[in-house]
Amino acid sequence: METKKVSNNMLARMPIYLNYIKTLPQETKNISATKIANALGLGEVSVRKDLAKVSDGGRCKLGYPCEELIKDIESFLGIQRKMEAVVAGNGEMLQLLLSYDGFGPSGLDILAGFDANLKEESVIGEKVIYPMEQLESFFENKKVLIGIILTSVGDAQDVCDRMVSLGVEGIWNFTPIHLNVPEHVVLQNESFTASITKLRMQLQEKGEEV
Amino acid sequence: METKKVSNNMLARMPIYLNYIKTLPQETKNISATKIANALGLGEVSVRKDLAKVSDGGRCKLGYPCEELIKDIESFLGIQRKMEAVVAGNGEMLQLLLSYDGFGPSGLDILAGFDANLKEESVIGEKVIYPMEQLESFFENKKVLIGIILTSVGDAQDVCDRMVSLGVEGIWNFTPIHLNVPEHVVLQNESFTASITKLRMQLQEKGEEV
Repeated sequence: METKKVSNNMLARMPIYLNYIKTLPQETKNISATKIANALGLGEVSVRKDLAKVSDGGRCKLGYPCEELIKDIESFLGIQRKMEAVVAGNGEMLQLLLSYDGFGPSGLDILAGFDANLKEESVIGEKVIYPMEQLESFFENKKVLIGIILTSVGDAQDVCDRMVSLGVEGIWNFTPIHLNVPEHVVLQNESFTASITKLRMQLQEKGEEV
Repeated sequence: METKKVSNNMLARMPIYLNYIKTLPQETKNISATKIANALGLGEVSVRKDLAKVSDGGRCKLGYPCEELIKDIESFLGIQRKMEAVVAGNGEMLQLLLSYDGFGPSGLDILAGFDANLKEESVIGEKVIYPMEQLESFFENKKVLIGIILTSVGDAQDVCDRMVSLGVEGIWNFTPIHLNVPEHVVLQNESFTASITKLRMQLQEKGEEV
């Protein structure tokens, strides 16, 4: 996959395109940006630009061959290549993330969970949650690329440091604090507060009393 | 609160600043952008710009009075003003969102949950989950600004339409499909796939094999 600068909005639209194209009737061999834009209520220009960024299969008047476009979007999203991850957290929030089934399209493969409050292994769905002190032994035989942090604010930096020293290359931080990571580690912050504030600002622009 | 164009990154940093300033020792009366930047490992220019956007309490050499800065950030994030919301979903995911305690700093106030698989009311913590068919009656005496959608993909558009016709002004969509909303309604998509893809791209830029 070639790395190109893309916007958050474009990244968010990609799985939506994928979902839509995959649910088209089997006899649909080609699909145009216009048709996708109309079906999803999106701007035609955005859709056209998005697709041009991930696929060069578009043909004048014909559009994109559906099969090729699916493959190109999947390749863009990296679905074929798994990224192994572990998640550290507490109780319910940890279980939530482990039982969330929407990570498929992203290639994220959560291997296990770790909970500081746990004394013994526990199982949720097909995933095992280990006591936090087993983090180091778990990493002994495995390559883990991503550490997901859902712990309490007080534990977050310590858990992050342990994961980094065990070799993770990326940290996905769900806590509302800033984590310090070495230069070679990628940090991605997930902020519900930011989303809600954005929603509030857009409502204000529309003249809502919020 | 004045509406200014702000970036996602800035929105994500605001709760981090707030958290940091609130945990300073009580005798700290003033705080500078430089000190915040160093403590959090952020760029000084970004911090300076961020703070200037939300507060005009900054004084040369002194920095910002902590109390005033806390108030200004809280006001920017809209913490003083509640936004009433309901959330529609299924089983565990719904319960877990209702028990998530990290929404405080955003002012989001989740009044109740609705579950299509439920025959009778159920209670989680201090929140009630109602059968989905009670959505309309619940709205009769209440102003609900935001509808949060955590349902299955198949139910999402229908539930969204019902919420919109009941008067919500914003939809916060956690499902991976595109929802059609009328022009006057604000749509905010939460896409974990987009976050993971961003993480992957940054890893690739650093030369990781992903």
